[in-house]
Amino acid sequence: MQQRYFIEISYNGTAYHGWQIQENAVSVQEKLNEALAILLRQPIETIGAGRTDTGVHAKQLFVHFDSDAETLQKPERFVHSLNALLPFDIAVKRLIAVNSDAHVRFDATERSYEYHIHFSKDPFRHQFSWALRDQPDVEKMNLAAEDLLGKQDFSCFSKSNTQVFTNNCDIKEAVWVWEGDHLVFHITADRFLRNMVRAIVGTLMEIGLGKKPVSYVKEVIASKDRSKAGTSVPACGLYLTKVLYPYIGN
Amino acid sequence: MQQRYFIEISYNGTAYHGWQIQENAVSVQEKLNEALAILLRQPIETIGAGRTDTGVHAKQLFVHFDSDAETLQKPERFVHSLNALLPFDIAVKRLIAVNSDAHVRFDATERSYEYHIHFSKDPFRHQFSWALRDQPDVEKMNLAAEDLLGKQDFSCFSKSNTQVFTNNCDIKEAVWVWEGDHLVFHITADRFLRNMVRAIVGTLMEIGLGKKPVSYVKEVIASKDRSKAGTSVPACGLYLTKVLYPYIGN
Repeated sequence: MQQRYFIEISYNGTAYHGWQIQENAVSVQEKLNEALAILLRQPIETIGAGRTDTGVHAKQLFVHFDSDAETLQKPERFVHSLNALLPFDIAVKRLIAVNSDAHVRFDATERSYEYHIHFSKDPFRHQFSWALRDQPDVEKMNLAAEDLLGKQDFSCFSKSNTQVFTNNCDIKEAVWVWEGDHLVFHITADRFLRNMVRAIVGTLMEIGLGKKPVSYVKEVIASKDRSKAGTSVPACGLYLTKVLYPYIGN
Repeated sequence: MQQRYFIEISYNGTAYHGWQIQENAVSVQEKLNEALAILLRQPIETIGAGRTDTGVHAKQLFVHFDSDAETLQKPERFVHSLNALLPFDIAVKRLIAVNSDAHVRFDATERSYEYHIHFSKDPFRHQFSWALRDQPDVEKMNLAAEDLLGKQDFSCFSKSNTQVFTNNCDIKEAVWVWEGDHLVFHITADRFLRNMVRAIVGTLMEIGLGKKPVSYVKEVIASKDRSKAGTSVPACGLYLTKVLYPYIGN
């Protein structure tokens, strides 16, 4: 009998054109589907909790698929075999049997991202953080970030060609924190629009570097105009860090 | 007039056949010499504080060279220009004018290395740490590491073809520490022989995984026989972290 499974994965996005499978470009989903097909001896269709753009990393992403393969009844062994088949930059953490109507995208109640910035040339962080020369005013950026909180129309931070039913997102957390000599932006919402986090970070950076006033976030949101927001920051600093489900512990 | 300078560099060794310049292989020294020659408009000979093997990283290494170029009189600007010319995986931290008889290799009084190990597939640590499946007994490894301390003949941990005057090294620190879910070996000595740290780690791992008794380090050192020591562990986990001089602050 067919059973639905979630798998929890993480990946270093440097070498990939994002999560989603596509023609003429290497994606994380393609690599995962290939490994699953070998292990389960049949083509497997996977659904991911969300896309990530080219070069963006994920510390946690859930994927679901259906299968009746017996080998799935030994989750630890299956995870080990799948990791051995996947390239070094994609890891599987868990396999979880779920109800047949569970859905990684529709059931996710919360998603969290981090954006990492460092301020001197660092040979070990090149692929993992944005290297910036000038330190921004973090206090100002945190004041401005408060204007992001709550349920609002975030059209201003979305790619204009995106087809979605609504541009409303409910942002629950948006804060910059120093972690050693590393500056990290933490943001959590029920959902995000395409390119939204990188456009938000770009806008906050303009405020932090004194190019725009603290009140600018409010103004940009009210405009609903993407051209008002700051330039998107580079993908290497962005991590999808958490996807939350009512029925799965973290 | 010619002036001697130290530069402090760090590098991600993944793409390099070690520090030392050589035919038919890309080295850190080659990249540094090329960048210096462009900036100073003349070929520059550099001396490094020590070699690192292929794939080994350095968080701190000092290099010296002589030049009469005026551009060196503005150290901060010079460091910035040099960083802009060097690839992403080599960084310059400082330029320091020193006495004409100062020598990065002969004057170093202490060198420190770290060896990093992690225990689950991690897409972000692949190039930066050794992935191991089974956790060793750290207490046993630390007991055994105590037998490394002090001035002893370490022929047993050296590549046999190495031409050096003496195989005596004075080890001042040798200890394993958990840093989160990461196991790190810290070792400091006046000097190290070629391949020595990786052979020591390999030997301690055999003890930690129960293949050899705690007393084995003592036995291997007494043998002066490289074939007695454990297999060298992979380069990706090894970092040269500190080189100490009586006349330079860290």
